[in-house]
Amino acid sequence: MKMNCLVAQSGGPTAAINASLAGVIKGVQDSDKYDKIYGSIHGIQGVLRNKTIDLTGKDQDFINNLIKTPAMYLGSCRFKLPDMADNKDIYEEIFNFFNTMNIGAFFYIGGNDSMDTVAKLSKYATSIGSNILIAGVPKTIDNDLIETDHTPGFGSAAKYIATSIREIAYDTYIYDVESVTIIEVMGRDAGWLTAASALARTNFSKAPHLIYLPEVAFDKEQFISDLQSLLPTTRNIIVAVSEGIRDKDGNYLSATEAAADKFGHAQLSGTGKCLENLVKERLGVKVRSVEVNVLQRCAGHMTSKTDLDESFNLGYSAVKFTEDGNSAFMTSIVRTSDAPYSCEIKFTPVANVANKAKEVPRQWINQEGNDVTADMITYLSPLVKGEVDTNYKDGITSYLDISHLI
Amino acid sequence: MKMNCLVAQSGGPTAAINASLAGVIKGVQDSDKYDKIYGSIHGIQGVLRNKTIDLTGKDQDFINNLIKTPAMYLGSCRFKLPDMADNKDIYEEIFNFFNTMNIGAFFYIGGNDSMDTVAKLSKYATSIGSNILIAGVPKTIDNDLIETDHTPGFGSAAKYIATSIREIAYDTYIYDVESVTIIEVMGRDAGWLTAASALARTNFSKAPHLIYLPEVAFDKEQFISDLQSLLPTTRNIIVAVSEGIRDKDGNYLSATEAAADKFGHAQLSGTGKCLENLVKERLGVKVRSVEVNVLQRCAGHMTSKTDLDESFNLGYSAVKFTEDGNSAFMTSIVRTSDAPYSCEIKFTPVANVANKAKEVPRQWINQEGNDVTADMITYLSPLVKGEVDTNYKDGITSYLDISHLI
Repeated sequence: MKMNCLVAQSGGPTAAINASLAGVIKGVQDSDKYDKIYGSIHGIQGVLRNKTIDLTGKDQDFINNLIKTPAMYLGSCRFKLPDMADNKDIYEEIFNFFNTMNIGAFFYIGGNDSMDTVAKLSKYATSIGSNILIAGVPKTIDNDLIETDHTPGFGSAAKYIATSIREIAYDTYIYDVESVTIIEVMGRDAGWLTAASALARTNFSKAPHLIYLPEVAFDKEQFISDLQSLLPTTRNIIVAVSEGIRDKDGNYLSATEAAADKFGHAQLSGTGKCLENLVKERLGVKVRSVEVNVLQRCAGHMTSKTDLDESFNLGYSAVKFTEDGNSAFMTSIVRTSDAPYSCEIKFTPVANVANKAKEVPRQWINQEGNDVTADMITYLSPLVKGEVDTNYKDGITSYLDISHLI
Repeated sequence: MKMNCLVAQSGGPTAAINASLAGVIKGVQDSDKYDKIYGSIHGIQGVLRNKTIDLTGKDQDFINNLIKTPAMYLGSCRFKLPDMADNKDIYEEIFNFFNTMNIGAFFYIGGNDSMDTVAKLSKYATSIGSNILIAGVPKTIDNDLIETDHTPGFGSAAKYIATSIREIAYDTYIYDVESVTIIEVMGRDAGWLTAASALARTNFSKAPHLIYLPEVAFDKEQFISDLQSLLPTTRNIIVAVSEGIRDKDGNYLSATEAAADKFGHAQLSGTGKCLENLVKERLGVKVRSVEVNVLQRCAGHMTSKTDLDESFNLGYSAVKFTEDGNSAFMTSIVRTSDAPYSCEIKFTPVANVANKAKEVPRQWINQEGNDVTADMITYLSPLVKGEVDTNYKDGITSYLDISHLI
């Protein structure tokens, strides 16, 4: 008898995670080994609550729309699986569910914390001698997963951020008044997204003129000095800054507002506002801070074709790798060439990935710590390329019906 | 001898104001009456500083790219022309410049304050018996100019806001946790842009569930009560709120942060943040505020074709109207039918428009003051329709070179 598959999504949304889901669905549909593909609603919690939907019969039209639909068709969760030693019951409950549904392979699409779940479930499967295969499909706009050249969702977010900053530069250049515009970009610990702001530059505009990443200690005095050096030649200065910049002692700029989420990560906000006040006080020029809002992770209206294609392939390939009997892995991207850009989809042991983070290498940040290097641009450039035809209805972007989540 | 024309842009940027500029340039190019078309850099200040550029020979490729380029190709200013009685010299200086350049018609593309300049220059021209024709071309994302069905730039901003809110709703619906998301939209005195958030609704999603405009006094207790009524049936509530909402005594919610700009308008920020704190304190649910940032006025990557077409025609027609000898007017849009949508370009005496504002009529807001009516939707719907092919280069939106402003 053919086995079934189960897929779920977890963590923060991206504009590309549904493309990976589409890849998994299509992979199972094309498979001779597997029968049905179920989706678990709200991540692994759907398993614990017996909330799944059957995705087996979805047609190509659905797949095409799913690829372009932002956020998560199956919903998400922020659920940290306890250690086996602390709560074996929950693992038994999950594997009982797998057995009842005749699941042969489980695919979890997510980031760092989701790969922790994949690693734990794999370890449990081994410990009980289960043949159920557990696979991770990467996802995060932050691009901070190790063992993969880059992560799905990053390219689309990077494209959105670079485009937004270019457009904000157009907005800013119109006034004949000295100004500083501070643009705050997501990225708690890794500066990849903020680095992507460099792609906003053109042959006539150097905006963003300054870029600050969390990988280099932020010094307020140096920042003011950087602005002072630029002002005589640059009327309208655009600064891209990561929400996660901190001083040499590791204190976030907006530390007073920091609280911790379930995974112990600090919730940041107000870095741009904090710098806005600093500039107002010290330089007295016109200053504005702009927070690139949640659209940087869910702007289905502007995605990178490269990103969506790769995201689909990472999901599709995950199914193929399990068909060969592999488990406890995360699919990954191996870059084989920068120009022309090419890459291969491979897989890596998930234990290598879980709970680790990839920071921007220091040598891809300039010596002064206020810009990125040409190597970074070479790395980033291919990831944002290619446009996807967005569906519009009555003038507004139109995506798949997600009433099952509402 | 044929006369020349001069054009300038003023006020805040929009994604459509360059389409009106393109219309003026094309109108002059097609004219038998006019010879050259000059552009004044940084609004009327370019006249006072003798900073103009010759736009006469620009080809169709330039015109096509100009239509799609956001913000202001000629730059802007926030310059309030003094009253004639207070400073006659400045008027003499301006008209001397006009005469030196052999200007037969001056076109000023802008909003409320710019129409004040048009009215004052027209009045001065009459007072000295000058034959120079002065014309206004409307522009403002706020849609608050009277004597025109709607304003250029509004449709594109409305499309951006509705799309953003729809995408933020997708982002929000993924979590199985009660939440309130407050989205702050521009609009100091008029709620048109915030009203456009209603276009984000689909046949399965009612987001935004609540809409608050500045035209109705905002009551914090009523707001909390509105949320409490919804929470039992609506897990993820999305609220659209204008930056300009104020209480029954006319105090802005974020009044402590209010300062005045050169025209005496209060500078607002933090309305969403203020409500976020209120909800956190009173309801204890997960809450987030999102400020739709300056992209709502400069997102060249997502414009309304209806808006850009009309903006072009308003500029083009302004030239034609002056060819017939008209002066002291603003071109305007007269709607002739809602469905199918049709409108005509006419003109109206600029004195009727200057320094007046068009608020949302009370009957287009529901009785409870927390939503808009079907009549509002009928009015708004055609304005966001149609998409424009954005130019992308290396994955990022690509617009005209504006190095003359930098």
